[in-house]
Amino acid sequence: MGIDPADKKLPQPEDLDPMTDEVLHRAFAGESQAAEKYLVFAEQAEEEGFPSIGRLFRAISFAETRHARNHLRVMRGIDTTAGNLLAAFEGESFEIDEMYPAYRQIARSLKNHQAVRSTSYAMKAEVDHKSMYADARERVLAGKDIDDLPVSVCLICGHTVIGDVPDKCPVCAAAREQYRTFA
Amino acid sequence: MGIDPADKKLPQPEDLDPMTDEVLHRAFAGESQAAEKYLVFAEQAEEEGFPSIGRLFRAISFAETRHARNHLRVMRGIDTTAGNLLAAFEGESFEIDEMYPAYRQIARSLKNHQAVRSTSYAMKAEVDHKSMYADARERVLAGKDIDDLPVSVCLICGHTVIGDVPDKCPVCAAAREQYRTFA
Repeated sequence: MGIDPADKKLPQPEDLDPMTDEVLHRAFAGESQAAEKYLVFAEQAEEEGFPSIGRLFRAISFAETRHARNHLRVMRGIDTTAGNLLAAFEGESFEIDEMYPAYRQIARSLKNHQAVRSTSYAMKAEVDHKSMYADARERVLAGKDIDDLPVSVCLICGHTVIGDVPDKCPVCAAAREQYRTFA
Repeated sequence: MGIDPADKKLPQPEDLDPMTDEVLHRAFAGESQAAEKYLVFAEQAEEEGFPSIGRLFRAISFAETRHARNHLRVMRGIDTTAGNLLAAFEGESFEIDEMYPAYRQIARSLKNHQAVRSTSYAMKAEVDHKSMYADARERVLAGKDIDDLPVSVCLICGHTVIGDVPDKCPVCAAAREQYRTFA
């Protein structure tokens, strides 16, 4: 983003007392959820024919990402890329092995079918994410970047693929036009 | 995003049992925080000279926003734009009136100066966000969009401004080049 991380104005990593550490973690959680909600609200505004309100939601969502980044920096939540890839790998592993199986089982036993679908979509994508992060970490530990290939994401279910986009999403069967590509 | 919200594959709003509702809220919180972390990790990877890993983090961050959107949809967290603006206004009010004053006071009393800075930056931006959401809601209730003006965000502190970018950020004194504009 063109910011010098040593910029005196940017909040710096700090040895925090436990109580401050706890509230900054909560603030990070709050800012993250606000950023996500505003993105979804932007899409809703655009669907209703309010493009300028959509833009306002997108910009404020981005502002919340700056607050989240600042809190994360102060609480030493940003490591080198090798460390960040390990943290991401561990987060995905937790979701796959513990969180989503438990949540999906609850939704299933209560016959909340849409919640079953929503948690299943997420869990399937996290399996791919985990393996992508593992591969990327091996590369970085060898001092290399991963291959320069596009990464595409299904707008419906979040299925993520490196390289060619499939004709049909293997998770939710959405058409290939429903993928967003990061080239 | 070109998705028909009635698409049969997209998880639909559902009357949830309380236990499913609770775990979906937790899943939304988890996906939101993962999405934010991966964005920051993307910036770190780019700074370290790993642009393809940066792209991977950005794409997976976007995938997590799709999961967050799905969970939010199922648990009826998406309203009309008028309702979404009210929810956003109330969220900002809570942060300004309760959350950030309490958190900042804790950081101050423990002399965690960087945490004071990070929470102060956020709190100041939320004041502007609250008033922007209030204005936008009035417009929408009258059936109108807000004015078609760019919205700019300071990359350091999240200061948000509609229209002209100031020469210097009034919150953190960053130069105008440090603003990102949503045009």
